[in-house]
Amino acid sequence: MSSLTIKQLRSIDDGFDTALNQLLAWESVSDGNLQQTVADIIQQVRTEGDAALCRLSDQFDRFPVESMAQLSLGAIEIAAAFERLPAQQKAALRFSAERVTAYHEKQIAQSWRYTDDLGVVLGQQVTAMDRVGIYVPGGVAPLASSVIMNALPAKVAGVRDIIMTTPAPGGQVNDFVLGAAFVAGVTEVYLLGGAQAIAALAYGTETVPAVDKIVGPGNAYVATAKQQVFGKVGIDMIAGPSEILVICDGLTDPDWIAMDLFSQAEHSHDAQAILISHDAEFLRRTLAAIERLLPTMERADTIRRSLNARGAFIWVPKLDDAKALINKIAPEHLELSVADPEAWLPDIRHAGAIFMGRHTSEALGDYCAGPNHVLPTSGTARFFSPLGVYDFQKRSSLIGASASAASELGKVVSVLARGELLTAHARSAEQRIND
Amino acid sequence: MSSLTIKQLRSIDDGFDTALNQLLAWESVSDGNLQQTVADIIQQVRTEGDAALCRLSDQFDRFPVESMAQLSLGAIEIAAAFERLPAQQKAALRFSAERVTAYHEKQIAQSWRYTDDLGVVLGQQVTAMDRVGIYVPGGVAPLASSVIMNALPAKVAGVRDIIMTTPAPGGQVNDFVLGAAFVAGVTEVYLLGGAQAIAALAYGTETVPAVDKIVGPGNAYVATAKQQVFGKVGIDMIAGPSEILVICDGLTDPDWIAMDLFSQAEHSHDAQAILISHDAEFLRRTLAAIERLLPTMERADTIRRSLNARGAFIWVPKLDDAKALINKIAPEHLELSVADPEAWLPDIRHAGAIFMGRHTSEALGDYCAGPNHVLPTSGTARFFSPLGVYDFQKRSSLIGASASAASELGKVVSVLARGELLTAHARSAEQRIND
Repeated sequence: MSSLTIKQLRSIDDGFDTALNQLLAWESVSDGNLQQTVADIIQQVRTEGDAALCRLSDQFDRFPVESMAQLSLGAIEIAAAFERLPAQQKAALRFSAERVTAYHEKQIAQSWRYTDDLGVVLGQQVTAMDRVGIYVPGGVAPLASSVIMNALPAKVAGVRDIIMTTPAPGGQVNDFVLGAAFVAGVTEVYLLGGAQAIAALAYGTETVPAVDKIVGPGNAYVATAKQQVFGKVGIDMIAGPSEILVICDGLTDPDWIAMDLFSQAEHSHDAQAILISHDAEFLRRTLAAIERLLPTMERADTIRRSLNARGAFIWVPKLDDAKALINKIAPEHLELSVADPEAWLPDIRHAGAIFMGRHTSEALGDYCAGPNHVLPTSGTARFFSPLGVYDFQKRSSLIGASASAASELGKVVSVLARGELLTAHARSAEQRIND
Repeated sequence: MSSLTIKQLRSIDDGFDTALNQLLAWESVSDGNLQQTVADIIQQVRTEGDAALCRLSDQFDRFPVESMAQLSLGAIEIAAAFERLPAQQKAALRFSAERVTAYHEKQIAQSWRYTDDLGVVLGQQVTAMDRVGIYVPGGVAPLASSVIMNALPAKVAGVRDIIMTTPAPGGQVNDFVLGAAFVAGVTEVYLLGGAQAIAALAYGTETVPAVDKIVGPGNAYVATAKQQVFGKVGIDMIAGPSEILVICDGLTDPDWIAMDLFSQAEHSHDAQAILISHDAEFLRRTLAAIERLLPTMERADTIRRSLNARGAFIWVPKLDDAKALINKIAPEHLELSVADPEAWLPDIRHAGAIFMGRHTSEALGDYCAGPNHVLPTSGTARFFSPLGVYDFQKRSSLIGASASAASELGKVVSVLARGELLTAHARSAEQRIND
């Protein structure tokens, strides 16, 4: 086994800014070949529909099928999968779904309107999307929580049809994932993976209905396909590797902090776990805890690779100095392992989710605290938000002018539209001036 | 001059669905050459910074400059441009900015939090982005209203730095556009156009600061560049040609309806204007009005090309039959030129902006009614919203668990994380269980 060589930085050293920038640098690479391969797959699905999906199932998922019926699961099969789960898993999924629902219900936007002093009715009508698609990756881990976090906000928003696709290599699909689909309100499941799943959701086939928006994580094929269909449908944010930034005042058990860092690092070798403290002795004790605990971890190899490649300990002279680093890093997950986390909030401008206090491990947020675990990565918390109900609602502006209001507004439109040389706009408003 | 041949459809005819689909079909085409050209320009700006911007200004905008100072305008120059405007234009810009501000202030999202029955503090902290970029196209029309509509929602959201870029062919920049920047709170202007402007905003140069989000319309180079930098920064929706759908009960002056249709058609030859009525005689009278008024229009040629290529009159047996067509078309602009537009609202699921009643011409919304004129096109109102304050705010989830709450939640996390084979997640939560 290779050794642990997690980076040790001090914010006062020359070259710290450069070292930090290098540490944070991450760019998704989607080369021309991949773009072309994905474009070809999308074209096959657009032109051949179900026939292409059946052929690609054999080609990519080692699951030869004769018809789409073998790739389609309805409400009865979804419910049956849930029933097959152990009681403890059933209860845990229900508990998670209830808490996630309760939190997301607070995000529901309501329609509003008002009448201004000219007598113009102005407002915004909020409606849910009709139909959305949730992509759930296959792979090693059966991502039940991902189903809950992607589907439930749509359900809370009032989306009528929630279509899930997930690859079923060799025809195998995990009951834990299907059980999560059951508690999350998924209405149909298609056993499709990769770019072909995204193409089917975006354009529809004889069997798969076209959706309005596609959300959920995936590999490079899935991510590239989502980018290519963006505009035809909505998509969620572009996700990079998962990250955590832990700020600690030195008074939390180092074993707790070590395990919190592991919980990000175990995701993938390019996940990022960073710890900041002003307490050099605490940083040493945490490093010792990491070295002691790492060999006990099931995913020790991934954790070690991740910590070596992208992990860091950063010492700052005063703990308050961490605030500027938080806003520079704009972390996906921010753990404030300090005595008074409330006092930090007003200074935090950019973070996906903020875990307040020593007891609030990031893992609570991944599964059942209530907020969404789909969060902006790689500094994109500067402009992206957690996935939420707002991602599945949309707005229509309302404008209703009385005859006199249309006359008054029309005079201003005339000046501005003529200033822009758009005379049909001007005349459309002018003909309603009644002076 | 070519003749007017606007399509006449009847919803009861065989083949109507196919004809409607063909009428609505629109796909942005961004070929491989354009993608590569834009990628090259972005790479030049990333590696050479200001030097690349100065070189490209000469190459694309026929504006040879020696330094970025010649491409940079600050607060004093922006204010001076406003002062040079005629009093009527100044007043109209101020009137528009005030109304747009008042409407958008209703969109401001507030932070919220609650404590649940386990004692977990849960909430959402809402913050503004730090810095955004507004792209304003050059070309024939000086798009002052576009500056107002793109910049003011950012200002209302509390964005500190609002950076505008606009091409200045030959070094010329329009006072009307700069005056709009003044009333809309733009803080800096750079005379940059095309993909190089988008690259500078996304990655920053020695002079141009990198922004968090880029909004605003542009040509194919600009649109392709925005797609390529998406993820590094946020972008607004992908805009297609402008469109209007007018529903009329036959009781509005046909001249009014004709001019409302012209006001979309004059934008470009691929703009779309559609009229639906159950009153065949009214449709005939409106066609006559179009034929009579068209020769009087400054932009008659564009209007005719647009109406011939993408315009349509659709007759329906009953006016209520228009409702299904509205939701199918999901129009950018919907004019309800009917006696009781309120009665229609509950049935309208997809529309960018709804103009209620005979007096409410679409042009009011373009300039000064209050709502934004940046709206989802080409059916994307199924999942996109008008540009708004929400596009410049973002959210951070808040989670604060007490020792006892962390213990209770930890038991559920243990079941779910172990079900997903993520044991570091499980142990991170389990170590806080205190039974």
